[in-house]
Amino acid sequence: MSIADPAVAVDAMGGDNAPEALVAGSLQALRGDAQLRLVLVGERSRLEGVLARAAGAERLSLEDADSTIAMDAHPAHAVRAQPHSSINIAVDLVAGGRADACFSAGNSGATMAAALLRLRRQPGVARPAIATPLPTPNGTTMLVDAGAQVECRPEWLAQFSAMGSAYVRTVLGIARPRVGLLSNGEESSKGNALVQTAHALISQMDLNYVGPVEGSDLLSGRVDVVVCDGFVGNVALKTAEGVAAMIMAALRQEAGADVRSRLGAALLLPGLRRMRDRLDWRQVGGAPLLGVRGLVFIGHGRSDAAAVASALRVAAQAVRAGATLTAGLLPPVETESLEG
Amino acid sequence: MSIADPAVAVDAMGGDNAPEALVAGSLQALRGDAQLRLVLVGERSRLEGVLARAAGAERLSLEDADSTIAMDAHPAHAVRAQPHSSINIAVDLVAGGRADACFSAGNSGATMAAALLRLRRQPGVARPAIATPLPTPNGTTMLVDAGAQVECRPEWLAQFSAMGSAYVRTVLGIARPRVGLLSNGEESSKGNALVQTAHALISQMDLNYVGPVEGSDLLSGRVDVVVCDGFVGNVALKTAEGVAAMIMAALRQEAGADVRSRLGAALLLPGLRRMRDRLDWRQVGGAPLLGVRGLVFIGHGRSDAAAVASALRVAAQAVRAGATLTAGLLPPVETESLEG
Repeated sequence: MSIADPAVAVDAMGGDNAPEALVAGSLQALRGDAQLRLVLVGERSRLEGVLARAAGAERLSLEDADSTIAMDAHPAHAVRAQPHSSINIAVDLVAGGRADACFSAGNSGATMAAALLRLRRQPGVARPAIATPLPTPNGTTMLVDAGAQVECRPEWLAQFSAMGSAYVRTVLGIARPRVGLLSNGEESSKGNALVQTAHALISQMDLNYVGPVEGSDLLSGRVDVVVCDGFVGNVALKTAEGVAAMIMAALRQEAGADVRSRLGAALLLPGLRRMRDRLDWRQVGGAPLLGVRGLVFIGHGRSDAAAVASALRVAAQAVRAGATLTAGLLPPVETESLEG
Repeated sequence: MSIADPAVAVDAMGGDNAPEALVAGSLQALRGDAQLRLVLVGERSRLEGVLARAAGAERLSLEDADSTIAMDAHPAHAVRAQPHSSINIAVDLVAGGRADACFSAGNSGATMAAALLRLRRQPGVARPAIATPLPTPNGTTMLVDAGAQVECRPEWLAQFSAMGSAYVRTVLGIARPRVGLLSNGEESSKGNALVQTAHALISQMDLNYVGPVEGSDLLSGRVDVVVCDGFVGNVALKTAEGVAAMIMAALRQEAGADVRSRLGAALLLPGLRRMRDRLDWRQVGGAPLLGVRGLVFIGHGRSDAAAVASALRVAAQAVRAGATLTAGLLPPVETESLEG
């Protein structure tokens, strides 16, 4: 293993389109990166059909799992009840040093539970957080936390801001990432109690903190990191996806409304495709789980091959950037046992 | 005053585009409703320029205010310090029975404070909530609360669900409005502590409660009312606006990219306009403040004439529906003095 030849473990069984999309996305990622190595983790019996396509692929190996954690399984229970499931094995490969990073589009709660149990937290981290990249007109903004912790303390949000900033600095190469705290207005008088206290804490930290930002700044490109609790992050993320899907559906409907519109849409098609690609969450890669001792990437359950390939590209980029141990300077927080 | 000839007081000084947009929107509303009467409230000296256009308009009267509450003023302070400001006078006209409803696109916190102070809450209501209508493919969904209460107790969310349901039933004429509770997943195991407790409470109520819904259901049309605390509601609303604005900007950019695209966009233009109108928050009217003893409508600060006219149309509709006293059956909540 070296950071020049990153090895990424792929949970081939996780996600709505598994295993096909995972295998196809893996092959696509290998074609796009001549140094990348991948380990497909899954139940051999269920993979046989699609493995034929992957047979003989260089830099692709297989690792057996005896089961798959269902998308709707209770995360902590399932991770314990199915120790040799594909998610657990993928995380184990990272824990044991046989892979530099892992990726799953399966049960994200289970992926998080497996990472906590088998990799444990980085020193001083109270809670891990999911950092989901959002497309903006000029790059990406990381939403931290996008759903890992639905009930947060202010100090945890302060840690999320340091963790998100460190990730963006290390992996995306932005020297002083701009950090915003998601609130209901830009004035520091706005916000609920959680946000007001977190604002005071983050203001004291050595970060490029721009202050409270609003929901409209998730995609405006004004900041590189938006910090919030995982409940709010999940709602914002799904609202954004819902609005985008609704507009694209309305556009499709209008584009087919009559002959004139169909002709117009045909002429505009290359532009519409560029627009769709630019807004597409599938193009911006998987979401790193910040705060654990290893690189774990979580994919959307609906990930298709393009989304998988994009996530694996980002995972390889993170390995090469040496992001494993860069949580940054965290404000001290009382941490209790989570992994027991 | 009668509900056939509704009289609506309009804060002519409130909003980024005041007074022009307020006056123009008022005239537009009068043209669209032959029974509507409007009372423009504002500082005569600052209204003179635009009043010339309104002079002689039937069913339009003027009411003097001595000042205007600034958009960024502290709501409770300003409402007390400027008792004869346009927002206060507009609310006073409702309190005194000279208007059936009022509308302001000004400082929404001040409008709420004025309503609490001068109209007071409906019996049994713990906290008022803002119900913002969102456009969906087949109508509107009311988001309750869209920003009035950033820190909520579970019982308040339960009341919001009853208040929202009653408004939709009375004003929009939907017999059994479908109510959803905004959460980070549809399973009742999801949600933070606030949402989980609220879910248990709402499940016991005589409502058409569909259970927890996700951010994507704000615009899907799956429910008629989405209940959440005002912090989450504000973030979701501004996220939705931000995504829509970003997509429309990307569409404009692609439509002007080259000759072919410009021709395509020109052909598709009627469809694009229909789509824009369908998604436009300005078309769906103002947001009623639920839970106070009178009809108070809050407009977006950026309201233009079309948005004002649309809000006044909805206000008139609410008056005609007799929505004033229909809070519905509220679950009992300990209420403390707010208006003091």
